[in-house]
Amino acid sequence: MNPTSTRWPAGVDGLCFGADYHPEHWPPDTWNEDVDLMRRAGVNLVTVGAGAWSHLEPAEGMYELDWLDDILDLLADNDIHVILTTPTATPPPWFGLRHPDAVADDQRQVHDGYSAYCVCAPAFRAACLRLTRELATRYRHHPALSLWQVHGHYLTVCRCDHVARAFQQWLRERHGDLDALNNVWNTAVNGQRYSDWAQVRPPRPEASNPAQLLDFHRFNSDEMLAHFTEQRTVLRQYTPHVPVTTTFRFGHDVPIDHWRWSREVDVVAVASHPDRADRGAEEQTAFVADLARSLAGGESWLLKEQATGSFQTSDGPRTLEPGRLEKHAMTQIARRSRGVMFEQWRSPRGGATAWRSAMLPHSGPNTRLFREVTRIGEMLPGLAELDEATVPAKVGIVWDEPSWWALSGPGVPSPHVDYLEGVRQAHRVLWRHNVLTDFTASEGDFSPYGLVVVPHLYLAAESAADNLAAWVEHGGTALITFASGTADGTGNIHPGGLTGVFGSLIGARGVEGYPLRPDETVELSNGAHGRVWSEHLHLDGADTVCGYRGGVLDRQPAVTVHEWGRGRVWYVSTLLDDESFTELLDTVGVLPADGDPEVEIIQRETDDDTYRIVINHGDKPTSIKATGTDLFTGQPAQGGYQVPPAGGPTSDE
Amino acid sequence: MNPTSTRWPAGVDGLCFGADYHPEHWPPDTWNEDVDLMRRAGVNLVTVGAGAWSHLEPAEGMYELDWLDDILDLLADNDIHVILTTPTATPPPWFGLRHPDAVADDQRQVHDGYSAYCVCAPAFRAACLRLTRELATRYRHHPALSLWQVHGHYLTVCRCDHVARAFQQWLRERHGDLDALNNVWNTAVNGQRYSDWAQVRPPRPEASNPAQLLDFHRFNSDEMLAHFTEQRTVLRQYTPHVPVTTTFRFGHDVPIDHWRWSREVDVVAVASHPDRADRGAEEQTAFVADLARSLAGGESWLLKEQATGSFQTSDGPRTLEPGRLEKHAMTQIARRSRGVMFEQWRSPRGGATAWRSAMLPHSGPNTRLFREVTRIGEMLPGLAELDEATVPAKVGIVWDEPSWWALSGPGVPSPHVDYLEGVRQAHRVLWRHNVLTDFTASEGDFSPYGLVVVPHLYLAAESAADNLAAWVEHGGTALITFASGTADGTGNIHPGGLTGVFGSLIGARGVEGYPLRPDETVELSNGAHGRVWSEHLHLDGADTVCGYRGGVLDRQPAVTVHEWGRGRVWYVSTLLDDESFTELLDTVGVLPADGDPEVEIIQRETDDDTYRIVINHGDKPTSIKATGTDLFTGQPAQGGYQVPPAGGPTSDE
Amino acid sequence: MNPTSTRWPAGVDGLCFGADYHPEHWPPDTWNEDVDLMRRAGVNLVTVGAGAWSHLEPAEGMYELDWLDDILDLLADNDIHVILTTPTATPPPWFGLRHPDAVADDQRQVHDGYSAYCVCAPAFRAACLRLTRELATRYRHHPALSLWQVHGHYLTVCRCDHVARAFQQWLRERHGDLDALNNVWNTAVNGQRYSDWAQVRPPRPEASNPAQLLDFHRFNSDEMLAHFTEQRTVLRQYTPHVPVTTTFRFGHDVPIDHWRWSREVDVVAVASHPDRADRGAEEQTAFVADLARSLAGGESWLLKEQATGSFQTSDGPRTLEPGRLEKHAMTQIARRSRGVMFEQWRSPRGGATAWRSAMLPHSGPNTRLFREVTRIGEMLPGLAELDEATVPAKVGIVWDEPSWWALSGPGVPSPHVDYLEGVRQAHRVLWRHNVLTDFTASEGDFSPYGLVVVPHLYLAAESAADNLAAWVEHGGTALITFASGTADGTGNIHPGGLTGVFGSLIGARGVEGYPLRPDETVELSNGAHGRVWSEHLHLDGADTVCGYRGGVLDRQPAVTVHEWGRGRVWYVSTLLDDESFTELLDTVGVLPADGDPEVEIIQRETDDDTYRIVINHGDKPTSIKATGTDLFTGQPAQGGYQVPPAGGPTSDE
Repeated sequence: MNPTSTRWPAGVDGLCFGADYHPEHWPPDTWNEDVDLMRRAGVNLVTVGAGAWSHLEPAEGMYELDWLDDILDLLADNDIHVILTTPTATPPPWFGLRHPDAVADDQRQVHDGYSAYCVCAPAFRAACLRLTRELATRYRHHPALSLWQVHGHYLTVCRCDHVARAFQQWLRERHGDLDALNNVWNTAVNGQRYSDWAQVRPPRPEASNPAQLLDFHRFNSDEMLAHFTEQRTVLRQYTPHVPVTTTFRFGHDVPIDHWRWSREVDVVAVASHPDRADRGAEEQTAFVADLARSLAGGESWLLKEQATGSFQTSDGPRTLEPGRLEKHAMTQIARRSRGVMFEQWRSPRGGATAWRSAMLPHSGPNTRLFREVTRIGEMLPGLAELDEATVPAKVGIVWDEPSWWALSGPGVPSPHVDYLEGVRQAHRVLWRHNVLTDFTASEGDFSPYGLVVVPHLYLAAESAADNLAAWVEHGGTALITFASGTADGTGNIHPGGLTGVFGSLIGARGVEGYPLRPDETVELSNGAHGRVWSEHLHLDGADTVCGYRGGVLDRQPAVTVHEWGRGRVWYVSTLLDDESFTELLDTVGVLPADGDPEVEIIQRETDDDTYRIVINHGDKPTSIKATGTDLFTGQPAQGGYQVPPAGGPTSDE
Repeated sequence: MNPTSTRWPAGVDGLCFGADYHPEHWPPDTWNEDVDLMRRAGVNLVTVGAGAWSHLEPAEGMYELDWLDDILDLLADNDIHVILTTPTATPPPWFGLRHPDAVADDQRQVHDGYSAYCVCAPAFRAACLRLTRELATRYRHHPALSLWQVHGHYLTVCRCDHVARAFQQWLRERHGDLDALNNVWNTAVNGQRYSDWAQVRPPRPEASNPAQLLDFHRFNSDEMLAHFTEQRTVLRQYTPHVPVTTTFRFGHDVPIDHWRWSREVDVVAVASHPDRADRGAEEQTAFVADLARSLAGGESWLLKEQATGSFQTSDGPRTLEPGRLEKHAMTQIARRSRGVMFEQWRSPRGGATAWRSAMLPHSGPNTRLFREVTRIGEMLPGLAELDEATVPAKVGIVWDEPSWWALSGPGVPSPHVDYLEGVRQAHRVLWRHNVLTDFTASEGDFSPYGLVVVPHLYLAAESAADNLAAWVEHGGTALITFASGTADGTGNIHPGGLTGVFGSLIGARGVEGYPLRPDETVELSNGAHGRVWSEHLHLDGADTVCGYRGGVLDRQPAVTVHEWGRGRVWYVSTLLDDESFTELLDTVGVLPADGDPEVEIIQRETDDDTYRIVINHGDKPTSIKATGTDLFTGQPAQGGYQVPPAGGPTSDE
Repeated sequence: MNPTSTRWPAGVDGLCFGADYHPEHWPPDTWNEDVDLMRRAGVNLVTVGAGAWSHLEPAEGMYELDWLDDILDLLADNDIHVILTTPTATPPPWFGLRHPDAVADDQRQVHDGYSAYCVCAPAFRAACLRLTRELATRYRHHPALSLWQVHGHYLTVCRCDHVARAFQQWLRERHGDLDALNNVWNTAVNGQRYSDWAQVRPPRPEASNPAQLLDFHRFNSDEMLAHFTEQRTVLRQYTPHVPVTTTFRFGHDVPIDHWRWSREVDVVAVASHPDRADRGAEEQTAFVADLARSLAGGESWLLKEQATGSFQTSDGPRTLEPGRLEKHAMTQIARRSRGVMFEQWRSPRGGATAWRSAMLPHSGPNTRLFREVTRIGEMLPGLAELDEATVPAKVGIVWDEPSWWALSGPGVPSPHVDYLEGVRQAHRVLWRHNVLTDFTASEGDFSPYGLVVVPHLYLAAESAADNLAAWVEHGGTALITFASGTADGTGNIHPGGLTGVFGSLIGARGVEGYPLRPDETVELSNGAHGRVWSEHLHLDGADTVCGYRGGVLDRQPAVTVHEWGRGRVWYVSTLLDDESFTELLDTVGVLPADGDPEVEIIQRETDDDTYRIVINHGDKPTSIKATGTDLFTGQPAQGGYQVPPAGGPTSDE
């Protein structure tokens, strides 16, 4: 992240509140009603322009910006600021007809808008820069302009000749000559050895060479980032005072290395789309918030997009019950989001997103939903001073998207190892016990933490092992789970066994894996059960914490601990369930001695003050002791509060 | 339907009995045996020509019709009439090689016959008309010719440039200018706004714009209908006395709006292919028969194709047990089919349909199957007078294929709403209680009915609401299930809530949906359980019949009733199970007070007579009281009958 | 099989022991370590060259064979012999760029090596022959050269124009004129009748014409075989003394008729890849070994490739537990494999096969795995004299790959009939009772056997029925299961019923099938249960062994027996479970009266000696009585042995 000196979003005081706003979906006579209702809801910031390329440039080089002038003026007149988006994620239908080579190869001949481009196509890159320049020159001095969003949503991977050429160039820069590429990719293994750069092609999705796929993912991440920074350069040229961002999404199929990207955006802005219907949605919300703050280096970030009502789960759509939206908003503010933004202001009457949630639903403002949204708008001003307070986490969890890509690909010890679930479990168990966590890169600065959890860090360079070892030596505690350290950054397996580059630190070498069936468990000597994986360890300094019981690994170590300098390293060679993982963390000594699992408390700090945000996830009121001042009322605490449960049945009020 | 003055099929007295006959599958020396066995079985009508294009025109413009002359003469000599088919559904291999652009885009380079054409390709349309003219001129005076079938089976959707041009033309006619199209399709929503007609393309199957997909479905239905009417014009020119039809199939992937099509065929002919192995097969048979009669405006129709033995279910093939074929035949005759026709006369010795059922199986005439078929042939003459008697249904169920398409597509409140199952459930519960039903269009004439059921009528114009309201006002009772009235005919959502255009009539507004998981239930205050969907209603005149119990909608209304003029409107906001739906219909007052669920009784009426057809679905004989005459024996009833169960174990007799 | 006069592999004494060796995966400085460890493990034969085309010919016509000279010299110096592979299964990336038409149609533009060729493309065939000649001329006199392997692994089916032309040519030769083709393929059935050879195309995988698909499978098998024999011709020209083989794999998607192929290879070499984790893996290993020996005409064959540790199951990867590898090796040696070879010598550090098992794992030689491999290497010399002893099986099971293809395709009585499982069941039940089996072709010589099992032999010519009948007449016992004899070799259904061409021999005609759902069972009168299929039989000489109980076939025969000459024929019209099938075999009289199901005993014979190999599959030691000499120790038996269980938990020793 490269924060500009100005506070962002330019011109907005306090916390941000709003949504994506699409005036182009509606006739102009609804705009005044929109703005009136926005004011009633407390909106002070909206995102404009996303998806509007075909409205702004209806034919090549023919710009129609008058409607945008009008709406920006109207918003400015009403003290509503704007995140202006370069809508390059949605080329108009004319674009693909005019430049068929610039459409992603699986979307040719379609012209239905979203993502119909190849990010490597010169014609696409040029068209994006022209449009960006047009917007920048026109609105550089507009009072509503508060933040630039570039592109919106990267969602497409192409394998055309443009991509092939760009990939070859990227590989030359990364690996040097073709011999090096042949070596790193182990092209000998499948008779794939290249004798000319022209032979190197983007791998098919089902390709079997892990190193080739890993490089293609990294290349795609970098190429999309280059597309972003090109536009950023233009925008900074015209509006050096306005920060530039794009919206991060975690868990999508397009590979983005967010640690790399976070260095290039002025603001870490994220979309938060939980896919669980139950309380897991709250945990996922906290996960995204903790990750966003970590990517922002601990500083403020922006919750840029979330659902108000209907959201998608693997079982289909669900609707957030009353009160849960407020919990989500508070979860994000507590984790240092500088505001709460929703996916759209108003549900359109048709199109793909007609049933996506909005601040203003089809059924209008006289609804439970709009009332709840408005209530959050009323709460935010009282919370503005929180923005200065840090979030002092004492545990770090290593987050490494390339390891995720690698473990989701071919050529791995077991396809059942679920990287994301491994990371989620660590976060989930700590969240349930009110332990605040940061995420950290595998070679990050671990000094703020007492414990670093390293889940399934499949790709680890020797330098990553050195970084971790140095920190443990000075007193840190590391907890490493299986399939960590096995391969280097290119996906090549370290010699010596499964524990690879972490073997010395763990004090044990994983000599042979015994993968389990998806429905299979293995018993441990403490009565716990492992899933997914088990492993034959040769101990080399570590002590056994508990062993396997029965089966082929009977009496062999399953969980170990190793003293290393002033610290220690725990290793878990199978996948524990949440309860057993909790017990292990308790043994490690990181969980608080008491606490109500239904009541979440987040502590924030400035040099002068301490803040506590309390969220009652239960269904009964709870009392907490407190001194100080209530931020909402400004009244002294009188020794404590009753905290009502968040949510309950729908009523007509 | 446009019935000609002549009774159809021309020349056939009484009820029709036969099958598709493929003399071209066998050497001519088997033809005499075929015709002898047909006479033994009582066959008086066969369908000839389907699939035979490559035999009739082995190279472009080279016709070989002698074999067809021979077989038609042989059939005529044996008093067997013919449905002559224009076999345009199966272009010969030469066609695709000669006209590669006229093959559907997913079938190019294949040349394996079935459906290898694009219905919009000029070369295909021209080839069809040439062949049709050839058949019409040659057989216009042939004594066997009794009915024309055009094309057979529409089964292919293409997205090539021919289709794009035709689609653009169809859209121009429907919507006028491009602004109107952009508006109706909400192209603003995904940045898809068109600035030129050439940009408008057929949507991919996975496209996300609901209005675009809906228009493409309607376009395909119309385009296939245009293909049909083109051939019909040629046939009428040469044989004005011979009616023209094609075979309707319900539930296939190709979109056909059967209400529209039924206005263009002279005879409603249908294929009936149940996919359940249990008694559900009998209900599905009745469903198709009721729908066919409704499409025929209550008049006679033709069961054109069904299995004799082996049929397909989702669990693989099954064989009809002894007696069930007779039940199916009687189900159709009772619902005013003018005959019973099977999918093929004789199973071929190879090819895709080798194991499809036939009147004459591989194992020959000395089989249970052939004996059972022959028995039906013997029964039909006694039932001929039934053909004049109407089927007086007192309940109408709204059937609307565009709502089905829309609810099966993207951009809907929940993908778990199953339109077909909603309609089937209403039919099924009424069928099980011996309540005869018609199907009706959403803006049909409801005056014959006391109750109209409106299941999941997602697409409803204001005029549909007006039509329903006017009928209720005069005393009708409507029962509307959720997801009805939500959108207009183009798929755009009516403002105000989920109940949309039916809100006033229902007396309640659905302000927010709470979709359920596929395996989830919600409890109601009467102990019933709802599935798939639940909904927060704002009552506005309606009374609560029963409410939700527990969960987010605790104590909110689930089923409501609203007095409207002299009638009333029931609304069900969740999916009931069959038992609860039965109880609701009982409350509504439509179910008969008594009756044996194992015994189906269909009543038919002429001005002078009343007929009762009784089908015993149980496994024991049952007695019924009756006066009048037995149609089979011609004997007076003597106060009643023993009705034997239909079916039992196979025996060698 | 066409054995050369020389014993194979040339130069190897005793039994073979080794693996695929890929020196090109590693820098030359590891080669000495490899060879040292090979000697320690007892390796005397390795396969070299597979996958190495891009290393041997890095650009068209530019050969780089120096590295291969070096490694072959090194191996020869260490008394390790070589199976030299023509690596034509893995064209280099340059090949597809240079000859785009010679790449299989689903792999164009990819260039990632494996199988990227069309076997019918002239450019591919020419390139293969040039490379083969290059290797043959260079190494014709090399002392390490012991056996040629052609191509490795046939894995690709293409449908391009080259294939179309070759297919048309093959069809002309098989069927003569186009009328004959139209007749055999029943093209009339789907309007597919051809009027020109150019219209005949390779069928799509989802094509519906069974005869067309069957011919395409046969064509592919023949075309790949032609590719093999072309190379064999070149190799024999230069090295008439060195036998030529390729590796057979059973159960893959590429159609290979192994009876036909086995006549063309000098050595039957097979890959054995069980996909079950439990003891089924041992049964599958025996299955492959029995099939390999049968294909070798009862003579010695070579287990060319199997896993040492990790292997794939339908539930993901598994690791062989300690001791199981030894069981697999003994299973193969006992069934007359002339050695034990593994899939690779050393796991590579990257690439698709990085986690495939090897003799030398990533974790190095100080591992349970390498010790176990070495132990097998130590056992083999003592077993060398077994190679001369025959395996006298008394039961034959008919194995017919075209019937498998047909029953896996369209146009069959039920898609749930699983040919492979039908054959496997017969083998499995006999294996569990220590009855040694051969496999035999449907028109093979049955004279060595007392019982021939004919499972689901869907395709059977009249000559097959005659062959079976003649043998039964002379006293043989046949056991035929349903779906046998139904169609002729082209897939056309024999007239008269399901039992088709076997009807007279069975003494019953299957007049109608009642296919069952996958989860459905039908009860038999002896309390057993049938699955998948049931059938209405008209008896014509046979007696009922047991009947159906309940359902549509109540009291009808299910299992029959028919006296025929001096023999008898059993027929089973439903799928029995293993237990019921065992009871039936017991009734038939083929199972031994006693025996421990945990202890497998294989008896081998020479003119002078009898050998017994005993494998203890249980988890406790067992005692057996024995006289004679222990092959490992050379000591007399002293009346018997304690046989320890094979396998147990992992330990660090």
